[in-house]
Amino acid sequence: MPPVVPALRHVVHVPTNPAPYDIVIGQDLWSDASAWEGLPRASAAVIVTNEVVGPLYAARLRHALAPHYPEVSMHALPDGEAHKDWPSLNGIFDHLLSRGLDRKTVLFALGGGVVGDIAGFAAACYMRGVPFVQVPTTLLAQVDSSVGGKTAINHTLGKNMIGAFYQPARVLCDLDTLATLPPRELRAGLAEVIKYGPIADLAFLSWIETHLDELLAGDVAALAHVVRRCCEIKADVVGQDEREGGLRAILNFGHTFGHAIEAGLGFGEWLHGEAVACGMVMASDLSARLGLVDPAFVERLSQLLQRASLPIQAPAIGVDRFVDLMRLDKKAEGRDIRFVVVDADGRATVRAAPDALVRAVIARHSAPPP
Amino acid sequence: MPPVVPALRHVVHVPTNPAPYDIVIGQDLWSDASAWEGLPRASAAVIVTNEVVGPLYAARLRHALAPHYPEVSMHALPDGEAHKDWPSLNGIFDHLLSRGLDRKTVLFALGGGVVGDIAGFAAACYMRGVPFVQVPTTLLAQVDSSVGGKTAINHTLGKNMIGAFYQPARVLCDLDTLATLPPRELRAGLAEVIKYGPIADLAFLSWIETHLDELLAGDVAALAHVVRRCCEIKADVVGQDEREGGLRAILNFGHTFGHAIEAGLGFGEWLHGEAVACGMVMASDLSARLGLVDPAFVERLSQLLQRASLPIQAPAIGVDRFVDLMRLDKKAEGRDIRFVVVDADGRATVRAAPDALVRAVIARHSAPPP
Repeated sequence: MPPVVPALRHVVHVPTNPAPYDIVIGQDLWSDASAWEGLPRASAAVIVTNEVVGPLYAARLRHALAPHYPEVSMHALPDGEAHKDWPSLNGIFDHLLSRGLDRKTVLFALGGGVVGDIAGFAAACYMRGVPFVQVPTTLLAQVDSSVGGKTAINHTLGKNMIGAFYQPARVLCDLDTLATLPPRELRAGLAEVIKYGPIADLAFLSWIETHLDELLAGDVAALAHVVRRCCEIKADVVGQDEREGGLRAILNFGHTFGHAIEAGLGFGEWLHGEAVACGMVMASDLSARLGLVDPAFVERLSQLLQRASLPIQAPAIGVDRFVDLMRLDKKAEGRDIRFVVVDADGRATVRAAPDALVRAVIARHSAPPP
Repeated sequence: MPPVVPALRHVVHVPTNPAPYDIVIGQDLWSDASAWEGLPRASAAVIVTNEVVGPLYAARLRHALAPHYPEVSMHALPDGEAHKDWPSLNGIFDHLLSRGLDRKTVLFALGGGVVGDIAGFAAACYMRGVPFVQVPTTLLAQVDSSVGGKTAINHTLGKNMIGAFYQPARVLCDLDTLATLPPRELRAGLAEVIKYGPIADLAFLSWIETHLDELLAGDVAALAHVVRRCCEIKADVVGQDEREGGLRAILNFGHTFGHAIEAGLGFGEWLHGEAVACGMVMASDLSARLGLVDPAFVERLSQLLQRASLPIQAPAIGVDRFVDLMRLDKKAEGRDIRFVVVDADGRATVRAAPDALVRAVIARHSAPPP
């Protein structure tokens, strides 16, 4: 008989007010009864998932929920960022209303960032708010999007423009679900993992550099470490600034540039994490040009991202259009575009930057026009 | 020269947490600079109104806002409950995004309950929340819907099913706007005014009985008194229970029956206040059948509503269908329909009721089948 290895199990507390909650991280988490204890009681639970994740995991999740909720149903969304829109959201409302489900119904968001964002926003709006639980199955969702209560759908004129700050009752990160993640999505998730180094913890950045090969190979112990550390940092930031009045914006490092790439190509062409990877190179170059960090840091970050097979050069969007797309970003105020910049001590701040510097950064890191 | 009469001016404080706010009630309110002091600053304000109210008041409001916001634009929704839906909501997002308006933009909801509910929900969702100000122009909106932060749109399967609890930064009730209110809408607003008597203040109910003729004639001093008293009661209830965990539900007296009438006929056929009037007769009859209040009280309330030309008999929806429609109400939990009932001391509670009693009430107060 093999020796019994205790399952990896961590709990990270998110101190949001008035409703704090826990992120539970571990292997074989769903079959652990304690994972489901203390959740809101209701006569019905609804698993919101998508066409890809549903066939892999919905039956297991339904089995885990059955002892706790008299009625468990499932609603599968179409897969992908292109469907993070009103028709998908309204499909959830149709599901809930056609079954006459009441305002205690608990939604379980089973999937990646898109499922979590839509299902969370549906929970925020249905009958003015029902409880929901995040059950993220991608690395990106486990380290970033499932934590902190940002929910949204896209509008044709901008990403995540319609949404709510609405906290889950719990986040359950089962590391086993990462085993079925396509390699491209694992790498995209690593972009958000790497993000936490420059903005908050340079020692963590060094740890990732040392253990990148294990992470790329899907080593569960290495993944457990990064999911835990990322959630700790994010919980700390969100606990201080739930509604992004200030500090929380540092979590958007690389995102102002990255969103412009996603919008310029049409959402879904690049994965969100890929756009963020390239955006981080641009944001760190901007930081260097502002004299906040050594140019060698831009090189260091670029090399790490390249080792993870992540893009560090933006597509040929054109500088003028790139700037226009950034101006629609939610962080913009009036005509000022605001950027998250980093310094040599692993701290981030949000500020505007001279137009000429921004344009130089875009030109330097974009593919030449075709 | 006529003597200077001080304008009627009252302030009611709503102690919601974390963001309390004031309801300001008065004549010629918009031209008073103090009404606009201390509102959130922004580079842009957007007046959300409808096709009927806009031509009457938008120019005056725009003039009042011009000194405070560099850019003021207007968006007019189609009029009526039938348009309290996603296309109307999305039209506001189109307006905001096509102008590149940022997340400090302040929305001003100029109109009745439908405008306030849609504009408030748009404010709750746009970029995950921008400030908004209620500028109610109907009696119903001034005494009820503009206060307390309930925002929503309808779904084809139910009224107000998609929404948020989202508090305004201020409520500005200019009594002058009631002068242009069609008589039918004034009477519908009086239904919600009358509501506050049975649930909270029987002396106020007596006051209304005494002064009904002045109210129906649009007497400003009488209207000022009822707007103030209704807002005081509502602010007190909402301050204790913002998210309708318990107490707040008493404000729905007559609404469970009323919503079924509105849904059964198709929204917009009866005005909301008309359905509530009839619903209050049914709810007080249910209270009497439960032994909570004397049957004479049902008669007293019916007489007052009739004097205000409000309906006290439901259309011929059919008892079975009526019950089914009530089951979809947001106050329902599981299979139980919950009703607001009142007692002889002017206090309200929320409870389930035996099916036979409910059916008897519906049959007693409905028109015979055609």
